[in-house]
Amino acid sequence: MEQDTQINNEDTIKLKLRRVIFGTDTRLGRYFDISLIICIILSVTLVFLDTVASINSQYGQLISILEWFFTIVFTIEYLLRLYCSAQPVQYVRSFYGVVDLLSILPSYLALLFPGANFTLVIRILRLFRIFRVLKLLRYLSEGNVLLRAMLQSGRKVFIFFFSVSLIVMVLSAIMYVVEGPGNGFTSIPKSIYWTIVTITTVGYGDITPGTNLGQAIAAFTMLLGYSIIAIPTGILTAEISQEMGKSKDLRRCSNCLKTGHENDASYCDHCGSELEAEI
Amino acid sequence: MEQDTQINNEDTIKLKLRRVIFGTDTRLGRYFDISLIICIILSVTLVFLDTVASINSQYGQLISILEWFFTIVFTIEYLLRLYCSAQPVQYVRSFYGVVDLLSILPSYLALLFPGANFTLVIRILRLFRIFRVLKLLRYLSEGNVLLRAMLQSGRKVFIFFFSVSLIVMVLSAIMYVVEGPGNGFTSIPKSIYWTIVTITTVGYGDITPGTNLGQAIAAFTMLLGYSIIAIPTGILTAEISQEMGKSKDLRRCSNCLKTGHENDASYCDHCGSELEAEI
Amino acid sequence: MEQDTQINNEDTIKLKLRRVIFGTDTRLGRYFDISLIICIILSVTLVFLDTVASINSQYGQLISILEWFFTIVFTIEYLLRLYCSAQPVQYVRSFYGVVDLLSILPSYLALLFPGANFTLVIRILRLFRIFRVLKLLRYLSEGNVLLRAMLQSGRKVFIFFFSVSLIVMVLSAIMYVVEGPGNGFTSIPKSIYWTIVTITTVGYGDITPGTNLGQAIAAFTMLLGYSIIAIPTGILTAEISQEMGKSKDLRRCSNCLKTGHENDASYCDHCGSELEAEI
Amino acid sequence: MEQDTQINNEDTIKLKLRRVIFGTDTRLGRYFDISLIICIILSVTLVFLDTVASINSQYGQLISILEWFFTIVFTIEYLLRLYCSAQPVQYVRSFYGVVDLLSILPSYLALLFPGANFTLVIRILRLFRIFRVLKLLRYLSEGNVLLRAMLQSGRKVFIFFFSVSLIVMVLSAIMYVVEGPGNGFTSIPKSIYWTIVTITTVGYGDITPGTNLGQAIAAFTMLLGYSIIAIPTGILTAEISQEMGKSKDLRRCSNCLKTGHENDASYCDHCGSELEAEI
Repeated sequence: MEQDTQINNEDTIKLKLRRVIFGTDTRLGRYFDISLIICIILSVTLVFLDTVASINSQYGQLISILEWFFTIVFTIEYLLRLYCSAQPVQYVRSFYGVVDLLSILPSYLALLFPGANFTLVIRILRLFRIFRVLKLLRYLSEGNVLLRAMLQSGRKVFIFFFSVSLIVMVLSAIMYVVEGPGNGFTSIPKSIYWTIVTITTVGYGDITPGTNLGQAIAAFTMLLGYSIIAIPTGILTAEISQEMGKSKDLRRCSNCLKTGHENDASYCDHCGSELEAEI
Repeated sequence: MEQDTQINNEDTIKLKLRRVIFGTDTRLGRYFDISLIICIILSVTLVFLDTVASINSQYGQLISILEWFFTIVFTIEYLLRLYCSAQPVQYVRSFYGVVDLLSILPSYLALLFPGANFTLVIRILRLFRIFRVLKLLRYLSEGNVLLRAMLQSGRKVFIFFFSVSLIVMVLSAIMYVVEGPGNGFTSIPKSIYWTIVTITTVGYGDITPGTNLGQAIAAFTMLLGYSIIAIPTGILTAEISQEMGKSKDLRRCSNCLKTGHENDASYCDHCGSELEAEI
Repeated sequence: MEQDTQINNEDTIKLKLRRVIFGTDTRLGRYFDISLIICIILSVTLVFLDTVASINSQYGQLISILEWFFTIVFTIEYLLRLYCSAQPVQYVRSFYGVVDLLSILPSYLALLFPGANFTLVIRILRLFRIFRVLKLLRYLSEGNVLLRAMLQSGRKVFIFFFSVSLIVMVLSAIMYVVEGPGNGFTSIPKSIYWTIVTITTVGYGDITPGTNLGQAIAAFTMLLGYSIIAIPTGILTAEISQEMGKSKDLRRCSNCLKTGHENDASYCDHCGSELEAEI
Repeated sequence: MEQDTQINNEDTIKLKLRRVIFGTDTRLGRYFDISLIICIILSVTLVFLDTVASINSQYGQLISILEWFFTIVFTIEYLLRLYCSAQPVQYVRSFYGVVDLLSILPSYLALLFPGANFTLVIRILRLFRIFRVLKLLRYLSEGNVLLRAMLQSGRKVFIFFFSVSLIVMVLSAIMYVVEGPGNGFTSIPKSIYWTIVTITTVGYGDITPGTNLGQAIAAFTMLLGYSIIAIPTGILTAEISQEMGKSKDLRRCSNCLKTGHENDASYCDHCGSELEAEI
């Protein structure tokens, strides 16, 4: 009997913890999420600042102490998640489970393999920690409209990028022959780099055409990039407009069959008969 | 009796001044506003020209005399506003009251603390003076459509910029590891600067990738920036289109007073009563 | 009697010439316009090629002969226009009359004042000759939709550019103080030049921020420019969409009063009754 | 009789081959297309990698062997196409026939004329091989919407580019006079190159204005380029929106067979007969 109550107590604690850690519908759950986001942002900022030579030489020790503090906080968080999860194995295998593990592993691995560059590469993985914040985005309907519009326009955008990449390759090959290694176009891959720099209107200026013909082709490439930027914008805008329009209203007037009423309309604006509520 | 008339006279003068200085509905009020705008533009132009070495050495004295002339004009204006304002304390605390004070303070402070750089920083504050001109924008309905569209799309744009900043940070960390301090990527914050220069297609060329892998990642970053520019444009365009559509029909239902009906609506979609034709 | 016929003959010649030179409805008139366009393009190309040092030294004499050939052609054209115009004085004062005169004056002026640079400045005026080609654009309805959309969005775009220029000035002043003359920000006007280079995402790289704070402000400026490019695009797209929608159809069904039919519709798509032709 | 069967057998083989090589409706046909695409991509990648000095010196021999392997594969493919085509002469003269021939010729020509640069120019032609992949795009309806929108907006975009090129020429001439050869503006064609670099917001920085007036004109050019980018985007977006709206309703009038009715149409707007509801 006593044991049974204990198990029940444990279950209650587990359930409460689960609501706080995994859920966002309680006040404590929201506090937990917000403080987690703050920890993530601070720890990532630390990693970034640590790479600045002047800061590293002055506050290096403080940063590594704070680093360990956040590692321990995230480790406790990971263990709590494991403990209160309904299906621990599924959690470990899930996308967020892997991200959670990756956010604490680098510090422990740095202990085992102390090598500057190697640690840095792993530390980058820690950045994925911040994607947990995206969990919140699921609750914003705005994100859905954007996502739907992007998925809808996916195939059109793919065709666009496929055509652009063909044009880029042809232009790169031509520029390689026209300009040659003397003007920085040392190979076709390097020439592709230049073409992308130009067609996206970035224009670093580290490689620039030197011959008259090369400059004419470059001018053509720029004008091309300048014009075709309109295409994905046009596709996406049209899709977003449609998605917004869709979310307006699907009711059809039973009297005159008109559709496309405003969301808050109670009467058909064409014949004046009452509209039925949406089902 | 005489005193009473005097007070009344004073009140009349105050009221008249208030209409001229704060209002824009009288001819004198409009003249006052326009001459104020001209003074602001001229005084800001003086501050700008004074920083050009050749102009400063030749016309420095003339500029400082004109500077004082405008300071005195703005001081008189500030005192007049204080005098004729209905609630002087509220005026001083209001946004425009603070801006008005900040537009005259720098010159007097420069007398007390004569230091080149310090004066310059304060002089920048004087630029806010020009924002008073924006007062006029309140009367342009076009501004409202733009503002409403921007507020409506605010959350979508926030999600967009949040996602972009995550991508920027991940790419910056990768580029820092790939390129390293040898190619100008001395720290992750510097790498973030490079990523923003690249993703916004600015492309200064002060930091450029040197390795093959770095150039490939740079090309990917450019194409990313080139494509995602379509997203905020799409959002805003869809919102502006909607806002414009709404502001099209100006009819007001005579029964329930609802406005914003569809252009071809014959009946109010809120109460079902017939709409009158536009006049 | 004979004299009368002669005058009539002269009048007939004048009328015929006028139809050929000013009109575009006869075959000869169109041939005249096309050959004029070719002459303009060739003469402008000559001016351009003449500035290339290697071409000038080799073909300089040939170019100046061709130059004089085109000048004589345009002079004859100008005299013919004067002769056959109904109101010669009005023609001389009209926009196209001035452009026509400016297209022949530089060569004659170069005879009187032989100075390299001076002639060049006048030669630029010759470029305006090409604007005559725009005469043809009047007949393209597409140009009208574009023009109407641009005029409609003019006030919104003005507010946009006014706000942007305020932001540019504030940012320029801040960058001047932060970076200073050491990093190329020698004066606020030069700083404004840098801000415009950055906010429009051009990014020459001739002036780049050197300090950490400067680079942070630069990154903010880039992101700002990257986002606000969406605003004029959004305004114009919405206006063009509206203009296109307007030019669709203005007919109203006499039976059910529905508007917004397709351009080529003969029957109302709501009630099936015949639509009347547009007036 | 025996001969007849043989001919029939040959015909059957021809027909089967034709379905596999030219068609895409059989499983084998799709496998053939996909393996061809892979061969094309691999062979183009080889050409690109061969231009990298370090790869060429190490794997040069391997690349030239693989090169010949692909050439033989494409030669067999070309001969098979010739054999099984219904009208071989028409095939040879068709666009894809020429592309197929051009994809194998360079290697054989390189045997006859062994010259580094000359071979390279011909090798570029091999890139056109990849355009065969576009054959697949014909089956994607998304491509059609894009293409229709681009053709529809073609005239508007032409007017836009015509006006822009006039502005570019005038600005180039002005900049040539203002800046002169001292600042890199050695001729008007070079000045046009600079103007295009600036107006498209590429901004290499290889040629930058040095004088104050030149920088002011440059700033104007940038702002112009920044604003007018909105115009083609606006045109195309409006067209894509319209094309998408059209492709929405799929009903066909049972009387006159017209399609492309409005979504809420109850009657055909061409002949007035009732439309059936969508199934």
